[in-house]
Amino acid sequence: MKIKTIRVTPIAFRDPPLLNASGIHEPYALRSIIEVEGENGVVGLGESYGDAPVLEVLQAMVEPLVGLDSWDLNALRERVVQTVARLPRPEAGAELAPGSHPSKQVANAYSAFEVAFLDLTARTLGIPLVDLLGGRVRDKVPYSAYLFFKYAEHIDSPYPPDAWGEALNEEQIVAQARTMIETYGFESIKLKAGALDPDHEVACLNALKKAFPEAPLRIDPNANWSVETSIRLAGELGDILQYYEDPTPGLEGMAEVHRATGLPLATNMVVTDFDEFRRSLALGSVQIVLSDHHYWGGLRDTQVLARMCETFDLGISMHSNSHLGISLMAMTHVAASVRNLSYACDTHYPWQEADEEVIVGGKLPIVGGCVELTDKPGLGVELDHDQLAKLHAQFLSIDIRSRDDARQMRKYKPEWTNPKPRF
Amino acid sequence: MKIKTIRVTPIAFRDPPLLNASGIHEPYALRSIIEVEGENGVVGLGESYGDAPVLEVLQAMVEPLVGLDSWDLNALRERVVQTVARLPRPEAGAELAPGSHPSKQVANAYSAFEVAFLDLTARTLGIPLVDLLGGRVRDKVPYSAYLFFKYAEHIDSPYPPDAWGEALNEEQIVAQARTMIETYGFESIKLKAGALDPDHEVACLNALKKAFPEAPLRIDPNANWSVETSIRLAGELGDILQYYEDPTPGLEGMAEVHRATGLPLATNMVVTDFDEFRRSLALGSVQIVLSDHHYWGGLRDTQVLARMCETFDLGISMHSNSHLGISLMAMTHVAASVRNLSYACDTHYPWQEADEEVIVGGKLPIVGGCVELTDKPGLGVELDHDQLAKLHAQFLSIDIRSRDDARQMRKYKPEWTNPKPRF
Ligand SMILES: [Mg+2]
Ligand SMILES: [Mg+2]
Repeated sequence: MKIKTIRVTPIAFRDPPLLNASGIHEPYALRSIIEVEGENGVVGLGESYGDAPVLEVLQAMVEPLVGLDSWDLNALRERVVQTVARLPRPEAGAELAPGSHPSKQVANAYSAFEVAFLDLTARTLGIPLVDLLGGRVRDKVPYSAYLFFKYAEHIDSPYPPDAWGEALNEEQIVAQARTMIETYGFESIKLKAGALDPDHEVACLNALKKAFPEAPLRIDPNANWSVETSIRLAGELGDILQYYEDPTPGLEGMAEVHRATGLPLATNMVVTDFDEFRRSLALGSVQIVLSDHHYWGGLRDTQVLARMCETFDLGISMHSNSHLGISLMAMTHVAASVRNLSYACDTHYPWQEADEEVIVGGKLPIVGGCVELTDKPGLGVELDHDQLAKLHAQFLSIDIRSRDDARQMRKYKPEWTNPKPRF
Repeated sequence: MKIKTIRVTPIAFRDPPLLNASGIHEPYALRSIIEVEGENGVVGLGESYGDAPVLEVLQAMVEPLVGLDSWDLNALRERVVQTVARLPRPEAGAELAPGSHPSKQVANAYSAFEVAFLDLTARTLGIPLVDLLGGRVRDKVPYSAYLFFKYAEHIDSPYPPDAWGEALNEEQIVAQARTMIETYGFESIKLKAGALDPDHEVACLNALKKAFPEAPLRIDPNANWSVETSIRLAGELGDILQYYEDPTPGLEGMAEVHRATGLPLATNMVVTDFDEFRRSLALGSVQIVLSDHHYWGGLRDTQVLARMCETFDLGISMHSNSHLGISLMAMTHVAASVRNLSYACDTHYPWQEADEEVIVGGKLPIVGGCVELTDKPGLGVELDHDQLAKLHAQFLSIDIRSRDDARQMRKYKPEWTNPKPRF
């Protein structure tokens, strides 16, 4: 379908005070909502990062893509390459959102529009998007309970506290897990670590093991532990971990931790493109790649990555950043098409507030830990334009333009710096 | 589009007495023509091997595929896996047609139907098949002049001699190249070797260099040279070769030749699936993969292979066996979608006789060495049912059921055996 108009709308939605290796989530998360309208009036949807450097590229693509055919993904890629080449090279992006890095400009802009192009094509044909990816091998995609250490509310109280409450100790983390599992039925648990004292974080994971003995467990210090710390704590974690996610920085460090511990290492930090995939193989750095279509090059390239993981006997699952329902459905469609998906995927979706979804009908259900595919055309969700306008107005009303968890943490702790690894 | 009926028709067409490492082409080549008819009456086309073990699998697929949706390639794969598991394991296939090997049963049956499924989908939508592959990065695909040593006619004269005449010495090979280049405009030249004395074959390549100083040259002894012979002759070939194709058997042998000579090695023999790809990388065996959608798993998997070659800095081009226009167009559509296609592709197409094409309008034009894509739906070619009936009748009239170039050579030389490598 020939493309008539494109709209890229930056939005902001409330984000809880979640702690991580870089600092703490700011009170609002940014995203871009992409609408690619065909000459037939059908609109394909996409969702991507909303940070300024990414937004600039996405907005610069609006004009060059008009007139392209939504089948022509090779032309899309070429236009993205040409456009990025014309733009000034931006400063570094958000540390924990790999897709916002300057080196990912082409991949993430391509990804954002690829999803929308595929959605437009599928909606035009009246078929689910997954059909364009070779069809579903599963009807529902499992996600994991994604736990965070967190404060009860944001500093300066920009809005009333969320319902989750504080989570800093074992009891609170177990309670958070219990709420999340009771609400959504997740079967796997991931603890975002790298924020507090590592021994305390491990104690929390052990408390989770005790409370949920059947649940596969993961811990993700976001590369904030030294090789030494990672190896030392592996001794206590080895028996209860499904995989060990990004304990330490760099391909070499990860390789060293794997050699020393024999634990399967997962990553969304050291293998974020095909070049790093190749280097990781050579070093034996990671055993599981947590893909993310937002920066790997869209849904088709995520499928390529999955085949590469199959070829080289690596596991594959999915990473997430704060996102809404369009991204959730894009993740679900591609995950449903990947036969070797080997673990429940990550999603931040439970952390987003019910009144801030941009899709019609509000937040998508997660039942039994899974998001189900339907037979609806395309991604299977419709844009709620009132909600979009509301979240765009919210974007305009705040002064956050690029995610910076360290800057936010300095509001709590003025001396906060980000040595990597911290522990 | 839901599939209503499938027809698999074995055909035979005249094949010249071409010499190779295994012996000599038999007077007829076998193929299967696949018609996948949707409930809308539209027919998607495929072409694959016609050897008995492959044909058995293709015919066994006819019933299990009825009712599938042509989008559902994952279901196609599953049905092929289930069907192959039910069939008795066949004997070894033709030595120089990797896709006819028993280990390739799943991949080649999947490939054959994948093309036809994609063609049915694209025809139903009224778009060129390449659009389903992400669109074309080039409008025409370059092929190479594929030269063979050959006799003037087949033993026992099953039909009148072909127009090409004998080609056993330098003058005759240069004349063959001249005819082929004048007729089709090829810019690259490949000499099929491994048939005659290696020094003589190298002398012929040198004669080609002299006659066509601008043309990239390749030689393909089909693994019929020892490591020692391959290294010795590389000394004489190194300066004039674009790449050195399968000089010697095995991933280890190829790795040894590459280490000793530094020449880029191409293959369609030691890297024929993703597992061998991985092993080749570990050994450093080859630098260029000659893909072939007939056994790599169809057009989509050929694209995956291309991305893997890009990732690991390998070149990619295409292998061929004796084939007709449906395969030529499938090769052309996928090659047009692969941005890193790095060399002119191989094709046996010039060796097939003009009166034995199965597509409407007869043989496709090759102009300037290239096959051009059109905007016609699907593969862009229509089946000529009279020709199909004629070639099927020819299949029924002969007793060749599996390609065996050595058996054929024993008609000329009763003592012929196939030590590998011979030289
Ligand atoms: Mg992570
Ligand atoms: Mg070859």
